[in-house]
Amino acid sequence: MTLAALKQAVLEANLATVRHGLVKATFGNASGIDRVSERIAIKPSGVPYEEMTADHMVITDLAGTTFDNRFRPSSDLDTHLVLYRAFPTIGAIIHTHSTYATIMAQARRPIPPLGTTHADYFHGTIPVTRDLTAEEITERYVEATGEVIAETVGSGDPLAIPAVLVAGHGPFVWGRDPEQAVLNAMILEEVAKMAWHGAALDAAPPPISQTLLDRHYLRKHGANATYGQ
Amino acid sequence: MTLAALKQAVLEANLATVRHGLVKATFGNASGIDRVSERIAIKPSGVPYEEMTADHMVITDLAGTTFDNRFRPSSDLDTHLVLYRAFPTIGAIIHTHSTYATIMAQARRPIPPLGTTHADYFHGTIPVTRDLTAEEITERYVEATGEVIAETVGSGDPLAIPAVLVAGHGPFVWGRDPEQAVLNAMILEEVAKMAWHGAALDAAPPPISQTLLDRHYLRKHGANATYGQ
Amino acid sequence: MTLAALKQAVLEANLATVRHGLVKATFGNASGIDRVSERIAIKPSGVPYEEMTADHMVITDLAGTTFDNRFRPSSDLDTHLVLYRAFPTIGAIIHTHSTYATIMAQARRPIPPLGTTHADYFHGTIPVTRDLTAEEITERYVEATGEVIAETVGSGDPLAIPAVLVAGHGPFVWGRDPEQAVLNAMILEEVAKMAWHGAALDAAPPPISQTLLDRHYLRKHGANATYGQ
Amino acid sequence: MTLAALKQAVLEANLATVRHGLVKATFGNASGIDRVSERIAIKPSGVPYEEMTADHMVITDLAGTTFDNRFRPSSDLDTHLVLYRAFPTIGAIIHTHSTYATIMAQARRPIPPLGTTHADYFHGTIPVTRDLTAEEITERYVEATGEVIAETVGSGDPLAIPAVLVAGHGPFVWGRDPEQAVLNAMILEEVAKMAWHGAALDAAPPPISQTLLDRHYLRKHGANATYGQ
Repeated sequence: MTLAALKQAVLEANLATVRHGLVKATFGNASGIDRVSERIAIKPSGVPYEEMTADHMVITDLAGTTFDNRFRPSSDLDTHLVLYRAFPTIGAIIHTHSTYATIMAQARRPIPPLGTTHADYFHGTIPVTRDLTAEEITERYVEATGEVIAETVGSGDPLAIPAVLVAGHGPFVWGRDPEQAVLNAMILEEVAKMAWHGAALDAAPPPISQTLLDRHYLRKHGANATYGQ
Repeated sequence: MTLAALKQAVLEANLATVRHGLVKATFGNASGIDRVSERIAIKPSGVPYEEMTADHMVITDLAGTTFDNRFRPSSDLDTHLVLYRAFPTIGAIIHTHSTYATIMAQARRPIPPLGTTHADYFHGTIPVTRDLTAEEITERYVEATGEVIAETVGSGDPLAIPAVLVAGHGPFVWGRDPEQAVLNAMILEEVAKMAWHGAALDAAPPPISQTLLDRHYLRKHGANATYGQ
Repeated sequence: MTLAALKQAVLEANLATVRHGLVKATFGNASGIDRVSERIAIKPSGVPYEEMTADHMVITDLAGTTFDNRFRPSSDLDTHLVLYRAFPTIGAIIHTHSTYATIMAQARRPIPPLGTTHADYFHGTIPVTRDLTAEEITERYVEATGEVIAETVGSGDPLAIPAVLVAGHGPFVWGRDPEQAVLNAMILEEVAKMAWHGAALDAAPPPISQTLLDRHYLRKHGANATYGQ
Repeated sequence: MTLAALKQAVLEANLATVRHGLVKATFGNASGIDRVSERIAIKPSGVPYEEMTADHMVITDLAGTTFDNRFRPSSDLDTHLVLYRAFPTIGAIIHTHSTYATIMAQARRPIPPLGTTHADYFHGTIPVTRDLTAEEITERYVEATGEVIAETVGSGDPLAIPAVLVAGHGPFVWGRDPEQAVLNAMILEEVAKMAWHGAALDAAPPPISQTLLDRHYLRKHGANATYGQ
């Protein structure tokens, strides 16, 4: 992939998060990686979305070295770097403060698979991280955020459940590429909204069975997927 | 009806579900049937709504045989076929994951007639199916979804209560034609939203009386309808 | 006022209810009266909003006699007539099934003055009617709806609290003219939304004091109003 | 700053509150002050937003003396004046009845820092005022509203927590300039929405730690801020 194509895809992912109502003000950031050249493109810090162009996207390597000094990268860059190093199969990351996913992150409530909307995109419960320690926050906050996400995913397949809610903060979502990450961020917000409404009626709403979860997830993902043209 | 007219009506029903906010991403599908020729038009699988034209609609017969191989039909085709065979009076089917109807489907909560908004379109409680068995999910999921809907409607008039919530999944809605099915899907989402809000205040909100239910429903439906021009 | 001006004002009120999200499908209707000529203009029955013109408005007298037979009036005409006869100071009526006002009507929950948003437009609790009897529903439903609203207002000033929630149905709202009635319907929906959210947190949220209620209401209404240019 | 620039900035802040859905009807008002000339520009009373131009903004001094008589200032002018005198570091004030902030004001519920969205803009709990006394309401309502806000802020830094919820009324928000005040009003509504949803699930949801609150707030504010270009 050319750097120009990567920057354009990352720009579009950033703009899509605003268009879909997932991001207000300058909250949120999207990045993408070309795994061949190991180059990352990420949103610049504090540039208003309405002025943002592909050229604003900041290019770094996996260690966070930037390749020109025109724009400073998102203040969450180090979280993205930790995740790209920890999860070699992912190609894009999106961070938002989307309303219902953030409500669940603030309430420290994981999102169980309550229906097939969830099962079509997330192959199990979307987890919440533990709280960061005072030392982690003070000494190395942004990296520690990435580390606690990686710790929460553990030995699981990051593409099978491509999101984690950071306690007291909000969601980080990823995918094979920027377009898929946007879709996952959108569906996460929808399933979080549904889960909140279920929890408000009923303290422990029933998750769907593993059989139904598999049926829906595997229809759209993996070697035996049958969905689409 | 010509096939071209049927395809156009089904395209418009699919686009209307998006325009009315009932469908996100590629969730949801609408179909219609011409009962004279027994030809069904249904949304293709996984084609983005913004690119969809009447020509993408896939034509099948009641057994699901398609008449050309350019596009694959919606992965929910077999559910639609079961319903067209079980309910000879219906002319269109819409499946969505619209937010509040899905919340109620996930919570396994039927929607009682709490007011005249409901009574104008649904002549009684909108039911929830039982959960599918593991065998049904594994062996014949899409057909079994249709069968459990038909089982839930039982000997009732499918046009009197033109929707069922599939447990842990979402609503299937129908009507005499695609336009009416869209309207029913829209009203279902609205009455589901109202029912959720009622249930959140009050565990068992009072349904309206049978007399009021009849008064409103029969004003708009059946031989003695008086509504409209 | 000319009939043409009355029809135009009533058309605009009907369209405003849709634009402000108070009316979906063909639910809802607005009317206005010229008290000099005692002519009423009301929305026609079942005409889609997007096709509606001033010329579709149906003209009647206070007994409901129409003056040409091109369009049938709203099926709720008799409710409007009862209210125009019972409340000589009102000049327009709007009926909607707006979401939160209807949720409160279905839950039989009056809306107390919980804040100054309410106090600026409604000088006290917005009441809910009793349920209609089976006989009222069967024999004279539309008139009885007007009568139960008038019974609920009783000897109160209909312009001081210009709305009633009809139990299991939805709001009827009025004002001195169509424009004011639209504004009252909009504010009703907003205060109903706030009241629902308050009730969901707290079974009996505190109303504001009579002093604060008076202070806000009388700033905008009556002989000593000081608001505006 | 020229008066023309001040009027334009205040007009834009007023229009932004409507565009962001914080203000309905003619609720709400924004003002700004030029601290050098001690001139305040404020929204006129009861002028519809769609007709409003920079020229409608009313200019006063800190005592409320206006400099021409073409338009009457917002009926809340005296509240703004009290706040500009009490808080010398603020440069703009916005009052809205935005839905969730008003719901919390009606429920007398302060908004604790439940997450980093809050921490990025508000360095602690957003407080609710005490109720005004009957005498304050009767004798000097608009000034007393400003005084009770100042009393609630007390010796705190008004720019560190730039909003107060007035009990039974709604939010007053401020900032260094009109643009920042709009942003604070927007984020307030979002954190109020999240706080309401948290409270509906869980009577006492956990605030984030002081360490995390500081980490986020100080990243964007003060001498060591690192956010942006």
